[in-house]
This record gives sequence, structure tokens and C-alpha cells, in this order.
Amino acid sequence: MIVSVIGLGLIGGSLAVDLKQRGFASKLIGVDNNPMHAHTAKKLGLVDEIQDLQSAIQNSHLIVLAIPVDACVKILPTLMDQIDLQIVTDLGSTKEKLITSISNHPKRKQYVPAHPMAGTEFSGPQAAQRGLFDGKCSIICNPEDSTKEAVAIVADMFHSLKMRCVYMDSEVHDRQTAYVSHLSHISAFALSLTVLHKEKADKHIFELASGGFDSTVRLAKSSAEMWTPIFQQNKKNVGKVLQKYIDTLQQFKDLIEMDDLDGMDNLINEANDIRRVLDQKEKNEQETIKKSVKAKRA
Amino acid sequence: MIVSVIGLGLIGGSLAVDLKQRGFASKLIGVDNNPMHAHTAKKLGLVDEIQDLQSAIQNSHLIVLAIPVDACVKILPTLMDQIDLQIVTDLGSTKEKLITSISNHPKRKQYVPAHPMAGTEFSGPQAAQRGLFDGKCSIICNPEDSTKEAVAIVADMFHSLKMRCVYMDSEVHDRQTAYVSHLSHISAFALSLTVLHKEKADKHIFELASGGFDSTVRLAKSSAEMWTPIFQQNKKNVGKVLQKYIDTLQQFKDLIEMDDLDGMDNLINEANDIRRVLDQKEKNEQETIKKSVKAKRA
Repeated sequence: MIVSVIGLGLIGGSLAVDLKQRGFASKLIGVDNNPMHAHTAKKLGLVDEIQDLQSAIQNSHLIVLAIPVDACVKILPTLMDQIDLQIVTDLGSTKEKLITSISNHPKRKQYVPAHPMAGTEFSGPQAAQRGLFDGKCSIICNPEDSTKEAVAIVADMFHSLKMRCVYMDSEVHDRQTAYVSHLSHISAFALSLTVLHKEKADKHIFELASGGFDSTVRLAKSSAEMWTPIFQQNKKNVGKVLQKYIDTLQQFKDLIEMDDLDGMDNLINEANDIRRVLDQKEKNEQETIKKSVKAKRA
Repeated sequence: MIVSVIGLGLIGGSLAVDLKQRGFASKLIGVDNNPMHAHTAKKLGLVDEIQDLQSAIQNSHLIVLAIPVDACVKILPTLMDQIDLQIVTDLGSTKEKLITSISNHPKRKQYVPAHPMAGTEFSGPQAAQRGLFDGKCSIICNPEDSTKEAVAIVADMFHSLKMRCVYMDSEVHDRQTAYVSHLSHISAFALSLTVLHKEKADKHIFELASGGFDSTVRLAKSSAEMWTPIFQQNKKNVGKVLQKYIDTLQQFKDLIEMDDLDGMDNLINEANDIRRVLDQKEKNEQETIKKSVKAKRA
């Protein structure tokens, strides 16, 4: 199958190289409106060739949008106008706005909204890495609104990346990602800003920072180009979740100020339950990789 | 030098094993009021032998307190009453309260308040690991209030762990750790609680969680036993820092709700400056390890 990947950054580049390497794509066409990115992606061997958007659409069976979600919303309706039998998918972190943008399009059924839950805090084709998606989960939204064939092809693509697919309503997806992805990013951005502001007065403040700080602030390296449009498109959910997060922080602050040691112990013990979640997650990832190795052997 | 480590959890256990292995301690005595922890530490080879507190104080040259900060404040004054020429240090995350607790003690000069900036989210002797402190920074507070010899011995101990020492006023230490350590922990606890509460209604919410979530929430595994007393002892600073963090989150929320894309871009671009800080930190750590390898060879 000939696959075109539109947008050769961290996500598009990592996807492209594994689709090639693992044989899902017989040919991998890359498109990027930044000529430097296109050049780098070709040079790094992430794609077989670079084409312009127009030619890529015409020359491929499957078109994957891996660009920021605001650019996706702009490009998708006209892209859908230009396809014949091609399947289209995207990898964006918000789904509702994008789906609405083509909800009445005659070719809507050839589009499969998706969201692989993987990434790093880096960007650009030089940040692309093999195996980025291994063991992770990919969401496919509203499969009943796409043809069975289209859903099967997109699911196959994710399986070839050693991912497991979860099918989900797009409204649920946007609400849940606000909790488990978008909130994490804002918490890291705000943590970074809080300490950077303090650095102006306390020049050596970062001397004391250790691995724990690195871990909580890591996502603050993520780019505005990708994240501002996500927060905007998902503002209803993100606003609600942020309020809950602020309320919980305020609760901590009140307990600390009241010297309520039992109250603090209770909150922390409750928060510790995240161990169960993270252990289960790790098991799921190992299980997914094992299964895909077995499937390949069979 | 005979060293006693009081408290054989993650920090005490990791310290003990490296002080032994790297030859700083000719004998390593372990003390823990939890007999299971003492047994495990001995079995894992973290210490040479287990003694009760009384004997350990009498039998060692250097006594290291590696217990929660509330227990430290309780034990330190009576411990100081019992020493002869021994040097005492501690590894706690707050320093002001502890220093105040013995400020008029006749042996105050034999005590060196310290804080090695390293750790993980796990606890207990089974969580101890070799090399935990390699390359990291250790704070020594108010060195002018201790004898030169005592400070030199404690600094030597940290150098043998491949750490670099930074000397700092205890008030500055407590203010700065509120920013770069205590806030990170509360941000993670609150993140965990926010998503765990949502899990009650959305059973599958963690299916979507990916590496970014893991990273920001990791510290939420940390124990109440260790962290509640830290927040209490540093409540003045932690309260202020938490308020700044909440204000920054609120600023994000307002910008998102007003669709202020430029405002969001600006905040995120500013937060991205954390790249500089983390890169510098990594360089410092590598440099410190290199230097200690050289010093050992010389």
C-alpha cells in the first residue's frame, strides 16, 4: 500500500519510518510545507520520497495527516474534495472539531479519525524515533461513521506499529484526553513558569532541582505550535479539568495551612493509588507488544 | 571511619551501600526501628551490621539521620546529648525547623545540616539503589555554625558518593526546595487525584494515558510518611509557592477561555525556556561524575 504522511515532525516522521520498515507501506511519500523538514526527513530515511500535497493525494492509497490540529481543520475539507477512493486518517489530539468540519461531506465515510497515544516533548523530523508507538494504545473515533474497510485499514496500520486499538466516541475521547494528556501539559508549563519566574530573583534556584523536578516539568519543552490549537479546540473540557485541578491544589494548600496532618495523609494515600494504574498500564503495554510479535509470527 | 545510618529506607539504604562499596565507611552500622526494614537492609547487604540506636551512637564516628523530617526533629536534641566527639548529619528535605531545634545545644558545632538532592518515588530498603546520588548536588546549610572538621567530613562523604556540594543558608534552602521539589510533589499528587476522581465515572480513562502522563504523575507514588511532615515544616514557603502555581494555572485557564491564542503562545514559549535549565543540569551532572572519577584516580 502506498502511504502519504502529511507533516514530517516527531509524530509523522516516527510513524513514517516504522510503516516503511515494518512493511505496511510499500512506498512512503512525505509531504511538508517546510522545505527544511522535508529535506531532513528524506535525508534521515524517514520517507522514500517527498512530493507536494496535490501529487501525494493522487498517488497514494492512504493519506495520514500528522500536522497541528488547527492546520488539520483547515486542510481536511479541501483534501476530502480531492480524493477518489483513498482512505484518510489523522493523528490529532482533539477530534470533535475536526469531525464536525466534514460531517456532511459526501466522502466522510472514507475518513477515520484517530489518535495514537504516544509522543515525546521534542519536535521536528530530527526528533522522530523508531518504535515510538510500540505497545501503546491508539484511539479510533466513531467507527460507525466510516466504511468498515477504511476502519480495518487504519487499524491494520496501527497494529503494524505494535499498537492496540480502542474504539471510542469522539466526545468521550476529547473529554478523557483533557484529563490524561492536556492537563499534564498545562501542569508542566505552569510548573516551569513558576520556577523560571523565581529564577529572576534566585539565580541559583535550579542547582537544587533533581530527577523529580525533571520528570514533572519535562512536558514543558513541548511546542506552542502543537499545543495552543489543542487547548483552543478542547477548551470546554480543558477549562473544566483545569478547574478541578486548581480546586485540588487549593485543598492541599488549605490542609497545609491548617496543619491538618491527617487530612494531608489521607489525600496523599489516595493519590498513591496511581501505582495500581501505572502498573496496569505497563502490563498492558508489554502484553500488546507480545501479542503483536505473536501475530507477526503466525 | 565507622558510619551509622539511622533509617534504612530508600535514601538511607542507598547512601549506606555506596559508602560501604566506595570505601568511605570502614564499617557501616544500620539502625531502623522497623525490624523488617533492618532485616531486609542486612540481607540485601546495604549495611555491615544492625545495632540499636544507643550502641550505634557510641560505636561510630559519623551518624547520619535518614528518617522523615518530623522524626528527625524529635530525635536530634536527645541524640546530641549523647554524643562525645561524633559528627552528626541529616539528609532531610527541610532544614530550618531541625536547626532551630538544637540552636542552643552545646554540641551544635558537631552537627552539619545537609540535603542530597536525589531520590525516587519508591520507599523502603528494597528500593535502595547503588549510584542513586551520582552526579547530583548536595546542599550543606549554614557551614559557619559547624566546626570546619565536621563540614569537611560530611563534604567528603558526599564527594565519595560522586556528588558536588553547594553551601547555602538554611532559609534560602527551604525557600528554594519549595519551588524545585515540594511543588513538584504536590502538582503530581493533585494530578493523580484529579484523574482518579474522574475514573469513578469514566472507568476506562487511563486507557488513553501515555508516557507524558506517567512522567508528570510519577511522584504521586511518594509516601505520606515522608511528605506530610515536609509540607508541614515548610508550610510558609510551600503555601506561597502553591499560590503562585495556582495563579499561573488560572492565567492559562483565562487565556484558553478567552481564545487568546497569542497569549497562550507567549506563555508556552516562555515555559519552553526550561530546556536551557534541564540541558545545563545534565551537563553539570556529567561534569560532576567526570571530576569525581578524576579525583579518585589522582
